[in-house]
Amino acid sequence: MALAASLPANTGAPIHPAAENPQDEDALATLVALLPDDLTACNRAIVAQMDSPVALIPELAAHIVAAGGKRLRPLLTLASARMCGYVGGARHVNLAACVEFIHTATLLHDDVVDESQLRRGLASANAVFGNKASVLVGDFLFARAFQLMVADGSLHVLAILSRAAATIAEGEVLQLVTQNDLSTDEERYLEVIRGKTAALFAAACQVGAVVAERPHAEEQALSEYGMALGIAFQLVDDALDYAADQAVLGKTIGDDFREGKVTLPVLAAYHAGNEEERAFWERTIARSEQAEPDLDHAMHLIAARGAIGATLARAADYAETAKQALAVFPDSPLRAALLAVADYTVSRVR
Amino acid sequence: MALAASLPANTGAPIHPAAENPQDEDALATLVALLPDDLTACNRAIVAQMDSPVALIPELAAHIVAAGGKRLRPLLTLASARMCGYVGGARHVNLAACVEFIHTATLLHDDVVDESQLRRGLASANAVFGNKASVLVGDFLFARAFQLMVADGSLHVLAILSRAAATIAEGEVLQLVTQNDLSTDEERYLEVIRGKTAALFAAACQVGAVVAERPHAEEQALSEYGMALGIAFQLVDDALDYAADQAVLGKTIGDDFREGKVTLPVLAAYHAGNEEERAFWERTIARSEQAEPDLDHAMHLIAARGAIGATLARAADYAETAKQALAVFPDSPLRAALLAVADYTVSRVR
Repeated sequence: MALAASLPANTGAPIHPAAENPQDEDALATLVALLPDDLTACNRAIVAQMDSPVALIPELAAHIVAAGGKRLRPLLTLASARMCGYVGGARHVNLAACVEFIHTATLLHDDVVDESQLRRGLASANAVFGNKASVLVGDFLFARAFQLMVADGSLHVLAILSRAAATIAEGEVLQLVTQNDLSTDEERYLEVIRGKTAALFAAACQVGAVVAERPHAEEQALSEYGMALGIAFQLVDDALDYAADQAVLGKTIGDDFREGKVTLPVLAAYHAGNEEERAFWERTIARSEQAEPDLDHAMHLIAARGAIGATLARAADYAETAKQALAVFPDSPLRAALLAVADYTVSRVR
Repeated sequence: MALAASLPANTGAPIHPAAENPQDEDALATLVALLPDDLTACNRAIVAQMDSPVALIPELAAHIVAAGGKRLRPLLTLASARMCGYVGGARHVNLAACVEFIHTATLLHDDVVDESQLRRGLASANAVFGNKASVLVGDFLFARAFQLMVADGSLHVLAILSRAAATIAEGEVLQLVTQNDLSTDEERYLEVIRGKTAALFAAACQVGAVVAERPHAEEQALSEYGMALGIAFQLVDDALDYAADQAVLGKTIGDDFREGKVTLPVLAAYHAGNEEERAFWERTIARSEQAEPDLDHAMHLIAARGAIGATLARAADYAETAKQALAVFPDSPLRAALLAVADYTVSRVR
C-alpha cells in the first residue's frame, strides 16, 4: 500500500547496538537456543494478533515489528516463565506478544515528529503523514495487547502490565519535561529511565513467574532483575549515543544530543566541566543552538571528562544488582542465560 | 507550568454544538438532574485518577478534561447502570471515569498535528511542542483507564472496553486511509464512524448493564442503543461541519473540509453533483487544493444538493433504532431521558 510504503525509514525500530555486537548476539543467541519453539510461537502470535480488516494496521505494524527487533522483552517473559517451571500451555507466549506490542506502541509514539525535527529538515512530507498513522497504529497495538491479556484471564497479570504501561507514559512525559533542562539531577534522570525503559523489562520478567504460579518472592525477584537490567540497558544506550563506533555498531550517534535529552553522560560532563564547557552545554543542550561541529565536540568533552566511564560504571552496578536478584532461583541453563544477558548488556561498550 | 501554558488552544476538547443548543442542554440537563451525585462522584474520580507525580500529566489532562466536556459518555454509563437497577457501590462511577479517560486519550491523539496543518500555518511552535506531550499524556490516560478497570475486577468489563479501544483505533486509521479519497462508499464511511465514535458509546452503555448484573439481552440492548446513538451523533456532527450557524452553535465549521475528510455530506453532494461540481470536490477534497472562497462554495453545494438533509435523515433513522433498542426496558425516568438524548442528538440541526 502506498501509505505504508511512504513511511519514513525512521519509523522503524531503532537498531540497538546489541544486535550488531557479537558478544550480545552470543547472550541473546543462548537465550533463543534455549527457547526456539517458544520464540517461534511468540513470533507467530505477534503476526496473528496484529491483524485487522484495516490493512494499513498490519502493514505499518509489520514494518516496525520486523525492523531490527531482537525480541529482547518477549524473550525475558519466555525465559522467566520457563525458568520458573511453567509447562502448561501458551500463556507465556501470548503474554510475551503483549509485552512486544506495548514496546512497539511505545516506539511508534516515540517517533512522533516535533516541530524541532521538522525545522532541522529531518522530516519529509511522508514522515509527517506517518506521524498520525504512527500514533493510531500504536493505539491499536496497545489496545490489542490488553485484549490479549483479557483473553489470558489473569487480573494479576493485567494489574502488572497496566501499571507498567502507565509508568512508561509517566517516564516519557518526564523525559519531555527534563529535555533541555540541565538542572535535572541524576535521581530525576534515573526516574525517567526507570519509567520509559525499565518498568516494561520488570513487568516482562514478573509475568513469567505469575504464569508459573510461583510465590510472591519469586515474582518480586524477577521484577527486580528486570528493573535493574532495564536501567543498565538504558544507561549503556545513553552512553553509546556519544561513544558508539558507528561503523561497528550500526547505531546512529548523536540523536540524544540533537534532541537535547539530558542523559547521564551529558550531566556528568556538564558538572565536571569548566566554565567554558558548561557554556557549551548550556548553548547546545539548554538553548538547542547547535552547529555542525558541536556533536564532535560534545563527544570529545564527554570522553575527556570520563563521562562514558562513569555512566558505564553505573550500568555495571545495576547489572550486578540484576544478577543478585536471581540468587533465589536454583541454577539452571535459563538462569545462567539471564545472568549472561545482564553481563552482556554492559559489555556492549569496550 | 510554562509547558502546559504554552499548549495551543486547540488541544482542548472540540466544543460540540450540543453544549450550545438549548434543546440539547435540556436533554443532557435531564440526565444530569437524575444523576447529580453520580456525576459529581464521577468528576471527582476523574480528577483523582489523572493525578501523577509528573506534574505535566494532571495539568495537561485537566486542560482537556475541563474544556468543553459535557461528559456525555460517562453519563451514558451512569444512566445505563442506574436504569438497570444498579445500587451497590461505585463501580459505575469508576467505569464512567474509564470511559471518559479513553475518550480524552482519543481526543489528545486526534490533536496530533500533521504536516498539512503546519503548512497551512495553523500550528505554532507551541502547538508542535504539544504534539508529543498530547500523545504521551493520552497514553497515560489510556493506561490509567485500564488500571481502573483492573481495580474494578471484571474481566467482562475489561473485554468490552479493550475491544472498544481497539475498534476506535481501527476506525481512526480507516478515517486516515479514506481521507482525500472520494471513491469511499457510504458503507466504508459508516465503518469509520462506527469505529471512531459509536464503539465507545456502545461500550459505555453496555458496561452499565454489566455492573447491574443484568442478563445478556439487556447488555446487548444497551450496546445497540449506544452504537446507533453514536452513529447518529457523528452523522449530525459531520453535517454541522458544513451547516452550523457558527455564532449560535459555537462550533468552528469547515474543519473536516480543510482536512479533506470524506464525510457523508461530501459524498452525497459529490455523487449528486454535475461535472463541474465533481471537479470542485476532486480539486478541494481529493487533491487538497483549497483557496479562500472554497469553503463557502462547498457549503453552498452541500446545501443545494440536499446533502445536509440526506445526512440528517440517516441520523434520524439511527436515532430511531437507538430508541427501539430500549424497548426491552420498563418505562422509567432514566429510560425516558435516554430516549430524549436520542431525539435531541438529531434535533441539534433544524
